[in-house]
Amino acid sequence: MKPILVFQTDFTYAEGAVSSMYGVVKCVDRELEIMDGTHELPQYDTWSASYRLYQSLQFWPEGTIYVSVVDPGVGTSRRACVAKTVDGYYIVTPDNGALTHVKNFIGIEAVREIDESVNRLRGKGTEGVAIFHGRDLFGYTAARLASGIIDFEGVGPEYPVDEIVCHPLLEPSIEPGCVKGIFEINDPNFGNLWTNIPLKDFFEAGFAYGDYINAEIMHEGETVFKEKVLFHQSFGFAQKGDPMIYNNELMKVAMAVSQGSFCQKYNLDFGPDWTVTFTK
Amino acid sequence: MKPILVFQTDFTYAEGAVSSMYGVVKCVDRELEIMDGTHELPQYDTWSASYRLYQSLQFWPEGTIYVSVVDPGVGTSRRACVAKTVDGYYIVTPDNGALTHVKNFIGIEAVREIDESVNRLRGKGTEGVAIFHGRDLFGYTAARLASGIIDFEGVGPEYPVDEIVCHPLLEPSIEPGCVKGIFEINDPNFGNLWTNIPLKDFFEAGFAYGDYINAEIMHEGETVFKEKVLFHQSFGFAQKGDPMIYNNELMKVAMAVSQGSFCQKYNLDFGPDWTVTFTK
Amino acid sequence: MKPILVFQTDFTYAEGAVSSMYGVVKCVDRELEIMDGTHELPQYDTWSASYRLYQSLQFWPEGTIYVSVVDPGVGTSRRACVAKTVDGYYIVTPDNGALTHVKNFIGIEAVREIDESVNRLRGKGTEGVAIFHGRDLFGYTAARLASGIIDFEGVGPEYPVDEIVCHPLLEPSIEPGCVKGIFEINDPNFGNLWTNIPLKDFFEAGFAYGDYINAEIMHEGETVFKEKVLFHQSFGFAQKGDPMIYNNELMKVAMAVSQGSFCQKYNLDFGPDWTVTFTK
Repeated sequence: MKPILVFQTDFTYAEGAVSSMYGVVKCVDRELEIMDGTHELPQYDTWSASYRLYQSLQFWPEGTIYVSVVDPGVGTSRRACVAKTVDGYYIVTPDNGALTHVKNFIGIEAVREIDESVNRLRGKGTEGVAIFHGRDLFGYTAARLASGIIDFEGVGPEYPVDEIVCHPLLEPSIEPGCVKGIFEINDPNFGNLWTNIPLKDFFEAGFAYGDYINAEIMHEGETVFKEKVLFHQSFGFAQKGDPMIYNNELMKVAMAVSQGSFCQKYNLDFGPDWTVTFTK
Repeated sequence: MKPILVFQTDFTYAEGAVSSMYGVVKCVDRELEIMDGTHELPQYDTWSASYRLYQSLQFWPEGTIYVSVVDPGVGTSRRACVAKTVDGYYIVTPDNGALTHVKNFIGIEAVREIDESVNRLRGKGTEGVAIFHGRDLFGYTAARLASGIIDFEGVGPEYPVDEIVCHPLLEPSIEPGCVKGIFEINDPNFGNLWTNIPLKDFFEAGFAYGDYINAEIMHEGETVFKEKVLFHQSFGFAQKGDPMIYNNELMKVAMAVSQGSFCQKYNLDFGPDWTVTFTK
Repeated sequence: MKPILVFQTDFTYAEGAVSSMYGVVKCVDRELEIMDGTHELPQYDTWSASYRLYQSLQFWPEGTIYVSVVDPGVGTSRRACVAKTVDGYYIVTPDNGALTHVKNFIGIEAVREIDESVNRLRGKGTEGVAIFHGRDLFGYTAARLASGIIDFEGVGPEYPVDEIVCHPLLEPSIEPGCVKGIFEINDPNFGNLWTNIPLKDFFEAGFAYGDYINAEIMHEGETVFKEKVLFHQSFGFAQKGDPMIYNNELMKVAMAVSQGSFCQKYNLDFGPDWTVTFTK
């Protein structure tokens, strides 16, 4: 069977871009299976693109081709690429930081720059369009790769994995009874915040389910949240409306409000300047 | 052909949860067909989950497996189940009220608790995750059922249909020239409100298309809307911007504003404390 | 292979309408492939429906059946139709202006009114429902056409293409060094505005990539924007936050803010009363 194509973008379904992009795939090969990954990523936010790739990729069948279109530099000199992961997935994306997490936490075996002279949609009035590579380059190339019209070598010239553009990654600090990290992403739906602290490190520092833990959140040098908070396995262990610490679906430490929004209730966000310290 | 899987959730497409959940299904069996039912249900609202199941289920082919993930008690002792309806559909859901309408208005033939020791995703770092049963339990079990890896008995132990958790349901009051009910749900897109009054009862009470009917809406003891309103078959019979009474797609009495939002214009909502009385 | 069905609507995925509509298609023929085109079109806005059809149709395989459900006159005397384009696509839609752009810029070979006595969903409690033709008429008819249960003649009686309801279309004015048009649509996601001025006319008027061009936007007789703006191929050529002129994916002149929202930053919108004049 031909690999699945999964798409993530900072587009919405509210205008014609997704439709045109998927139509191009179906024109390459009617048999290809297209799945929606994530849409409405924060616009131009290549960090979020990177995180969502890392979050979901491994749950798809090996060989799946994931197309990521968050592309603030579309039409400029940034590279368009296809990366092959060490565990057998392909990612089609602008090389603009979107591969940060996958490169660091999963591993990239090889990367190739898309050769526009071969792998670019022609006709249908697309000559001269420089602002929609999702349709004209990424979706089209992914479809050709999935269909077997080209193989990985057919994408274009290989370049060193070391040249892949990456965002800086911060490591958490783990000491007995004191763990410090950042909120590296949110759950924009439920308003939870996810730290960069692995659960196993949290356990090793001496924290256990059922503990009430001091949590202090700082933003730009100021304390914006300081409370003793329950740490448990799921939201239902806290009273409705109470903040809590839990481990998220990627086995990292996270914070939520039971049946509420942690971000909204306490006016919090994510990024390298949002630090959180847990102490006994 | 293998049954279709239809998903409804209180997730959005704006982060990686739907993607991961669907990826797991495709890992169980590439051939399975996944369709989006409803997403962005009001968060933690098991009543809305119940209504949307009831609203759409019957329009899918017999045998369809509908997965509903609105799960405020995820990871606690609430049951995870698969229900089989009297007309041959399967519903995979937390047993938390989401089966209320289907049980009462369609009928459930049998219900089984998902046996986590068999029907739970293993590996991929999911051990110890207690907060994402959409991915690790409901989607996975539904996929195994659709694929034929397990049959209905293979879900887990049966329990009495009478033990299914249900919300209370209110009956409308029908008298000649006077009908009283509640707004039991909204159309969040167009801002219409749907009552629990069947159209046939409305006709029997003496109302007819073309009538101007007194409509009084009360909320917590206060009258919040009182007007003479046209009752007709469709929105286009009223002037743009005018309120109207019509029958909705489930043949119940509903209220709208022609080419506008009834909820927004009059600041209305749904629930057991929103009553509406129609008199000649 | 049977043609693909692509849907665009002014519905959302937040309630059960899309689910019910797609379920009906699958009941007609399990094999049919359903793709989401555009959802959340501005409600009741048949102009936007028309533009989105025109924007995306050509990128799908020939023979694709596009279903458009923006239907303020549902249940009234407006025609329900299937149009066949000169390049071999089918469009299933209320005849309410939604065919304006396709008729004028692509061409319609023939149009037929849907015969409700044949091509309307029966049973499942749908008799007497007049407000959901997406489910009961458009989706159902499209599915029957895609499945081969009916051919184009089987839709219903043909009527003259000249009788198709169209919105007025405004032509831009092109003179050397001075081009005047309207914003005819937006990109609701990124906040860009698209004019009705073809790029080739813009070039012929003497403008070139790299030019700084005087742009004056008027709304209801008042100047609401007047700046010298860079014209270039893509957003990345302007400084982040700066306005710019570029050519969009349909090779028309458009305006954006680099990594921002042009509409929001300057409080602009689209429509026949939003004119823009470009001078050297």
